[in-house]
Amino acid sequence: MSTDSAAKKPKPALFQTEVKVNWKKRKAELKERQKEWKRAKLIKQLEKKKQREAAENTKDEEIQVNKGRSYTVSVALPGSVLDNAQSPELRTYLAGQIARACVVFSVDEIVVFDELGEDVKSIEGEFKGVGKKGHACIQLARILQYMECPQYLRKWFFPVHKDLQYAGLLNPLDSPHHMRIDEESEYREGRVLNKPPKQGKGSLVNCGMRKDVRIDKQLQPGLRVTVKLSKTQSQESRLYKGVVVPPHVPRSEGGLYWGYTVRLASCLSSVFTQSPYKEGYDLTVGTSERGTNVDQATLSPFKHLLVVFGGLQGLEASVDADLNLDATDPSLLFDMYLNTCPSQGSRTIRTEEAILISMAALRQKITAVFSDVSGGS
Amino acid sequence: MSTDSAAKKPKPALFQTEVKVNWKKRKAELKERQKEWKRAKLIKQLEKKKQREAAENTKDEEIQVNKGRSYTVSVALPGSVLDNAQSPELRTYLAGQIARACVVFSVDEIVVFDELGEDVKSIEGEFKGVGKKGHACIQLARILQYMECPQYLRKWFFPVHKDLQYAGLLNPLDSPHHMRIDEESEYREGRVLNKPPKQGKGSLVNCGMRKDVRIDKQLQPGLRVTVKLSKTQSQESRLYKGVVVPPHVPRSEGGLYWGYTVRLASCLSSVFTQSPYKEGYDLTVGTSERGTNVDQATLSPFKHLLVVFGGLQGLEASVDADLNLDATDPSLLFDMYLNTCPSQGSRTIRTEEAILISMAALRQKITAVFSDVSGGS
Ligand SMILES: C[S@@+](CC[C@H](N)C(=O)[O-])C[C@H]1O[C@@H](n2cnc3c(N)ncnc32)[C@H](O)[C@@H]1O
Ligand SMILES: C[S@@+](CC[C@H](N)C(=O)[O-])C[C@H]1O[C@@H](n2cnc3c(N)ncnc32)[C@H](O)[C@@H]1O
Repeated sequence: MSTDSAAKKPKPALFQTEVKVNWKKRKAELKERQKEWKRAKLIKQLEKKKQREAAENTKDEEIQVNKGRSYTVSVALPGSVLDNAQSPELRTYLAGQIARACVVFSVDEIVVFDELGEDVKSIEGEFKGVGKKGHACIQLARILQYMECPQYLRKWFFPVHKDLQYAGLLNPLDSPHHMRIDEESEYREGRVLNKPPKQGKGSLVNCGMRKDVRIDKQLQPGLRVTVKLSKTQSQESRLYKGVVVPPHVPRSEGGLYWGYTVRLASCLSSVFTQSPYKEGYDLTVGTSERGTNVDQATLSPFKHLLVVFGGLQGLEASVDADLNLDATDPSLLFDMYLNTCPSQGSRTIRTEEAILISMAALRQKITAVFSDVSGGS
Repeated sequence: MSTDSAAKKPKPALFQTEVKVNWKKRKAELKERQKEWKRAKLIKQLEKKKQREAAENTKDEEIQVNKGRSYTVSVALPGSVLDNAQSPELRTYLAGQIARACVVFSVDEIVVFDELGEDVKSIEGEFKGVGKKGHACIQLARILQYMECPQYLRKWFFPVHKDLQYAGLLNPLDSPHHMRIDEESEYREGRVLNKPPKQGKGSLVNCGMRKDVRIDKQLQPGLRVTVKLSKTQSQESRLYKGVVVPPHVPRSEGGLYWGYTVRLASCLSSVFTQSPYKEGYDLTVGTSERGTNVDQATLSPFKHLLVVFGGLQGLEASVDADLNLDATDPSLLFDMYLNTCPSQGSRTIRTEEAILISMAALRQKITAVFSDVSGGS
């Protein structure tokens, strides 16, 4: 293993899901998918290395854990919410509102599910649920990914696409991992450059700084990677120095909010069953005006929280559509089913509003869970 | 006093404030203003009558007070927030987001202030602060008023206007006072019809129902009024029966959310000094990322709460602009200065997001203030 392949957020096969087959595109997608497998492999290798290192110096680790955030928060919503918008511009704007709401509350994963999806099929296989209507899921996921990507990397990872036609209208996320050129930071997102590294030296990475970064490994050009920059840098050098780390490290060790990953789910049950976390979600919250009053709720300790929102018809509609779910009462699906806005003044709260309102109501309760341990702040 | 003039929300001289004088328009505005004075007068008369009645049967009143909501919540924000929108359509949409956020949290008054306004001038006089930029205040106020008006009355109160050109894009408020035609309700908003009432009988009012309503008074045609419908109605009659009440009655006696009034303020200090409540606001909250943590805050009992938001530059900018304010530190202006989203994941929260987030954080605290008394629910 002299040359590693590289890391970061294996974007789950988003772009291979259109229904009309375009073979040129399909080929490009396959290539993209292979890249992603390689990335996933590298992440695993990095994890193992980390574990070994962790076992070796537990003390150091403990200090770092105190600074880091160990838990994650995921939000799931149906892509069909875009279909409520009245114009392509407003469709885009709505996607942007959702992205911003999630960033404001430091959400780590956004799951876009197909509200009309009937069956659980791996999103790695054929994703049949996505017809004309279903395109909302893909478009929402694409805009969310686009916004999450630091501006200086976008032109590489997001070629012109009709789903992004009105991206100019989107309000920026202003997430801490969207660094300005001269901003100092322990971590940065970057893209492996297509410059052959010298014998025995690591690849060059563009991290949106004035100099490129020499990393510790040789990686495939074009990969998106998370780089931890060395504490000391020589002023004279033409390059900065850094090492590649798994994308959760800025959060789990640095305590920083580092954007979200995006996942497509072919139906409501896949939201639960296809969790990227080995242990799955250990606390699930459904939201509805018919839920119990959030003011009386206390969250139990969790590692991976999932908060699920419905579309125009509420979560009832998604439960009804999903053949894998026997329940017709969505409250049975979740650990908690909460009304996050008791005595609401409007007859209906829109999903994009409900995300801000619900996360605002849950924020303090999440903090409370972690306030006697580390990680809450 | 055989003929009364009529009631409801004296829209404070909103439409007389454009800078280029259009005389035809100006005349129409003057007429409108006279109507408003008459409305204001009627409200006062109704208040007095109510007070007399109240004094007469205190017992009945007490039962009603328990059902009603005695306190009010006002939100103030600079009109300049509209200038952050990238297109006329999005400008309109943004105004709609603000209206919806306020309705979701049952806000009774929205104050739109001129962030660049230097001096306190009554909004009844010349409203000089409104130049090209300042038009944002008027447009925001106009769209807010438009949205608050029940659909069946809009064509009467909102003639075609360029500020409302994209009103079709607005998401409806779905407020409880926006009744559907066959909905049963104790109260309804209506418009006095231009049909001469018979000798000794009250005017006819269009309340958006299948029949017109005969009220207890003769009022000037065209006025907007709040009508309390009689409990028993004869099926055979061509008309419903009702009485005119001041616009706060559905809230203060019925405990219903009944929309908001809109007020323009020429600078930040006018927000406080021109309160429509005789006693003024008795609890004022400023919002800022530099405020104290909302989780540790408790609200003191109040009758009239005011929550103030800043624009792109925060409340600091408004305080600096306002020559009436000696303070340069906005926290000194308010009873409380709160960070309603501690550990925010985005570097900046937009004003329209901050309203939803802040009101969600304050909702439970407001409820708590009134939970041992009546009115909280
Ligand atoms: C337009 S609403 C759905 C309304 C639908 N008619 C229903 O009865 O559920 C869209 C979503 O916003 C969220 N939502 C709306 N009001 C809520 C409330 N009071 N508490 C929690 N979530 C709410 C839920 O996730 C809901 O599925
Ligand atoms: C774009 S922000 C203003 C940012 C401005 N740079 C500042 O430093 O205040 C617009 C408004 O949203 C509200 N806001 C933003 N973040 C907030 C927070 N964490 N807590 C409370 N209000 C906030 C405030 O009313 C603020 O004036």
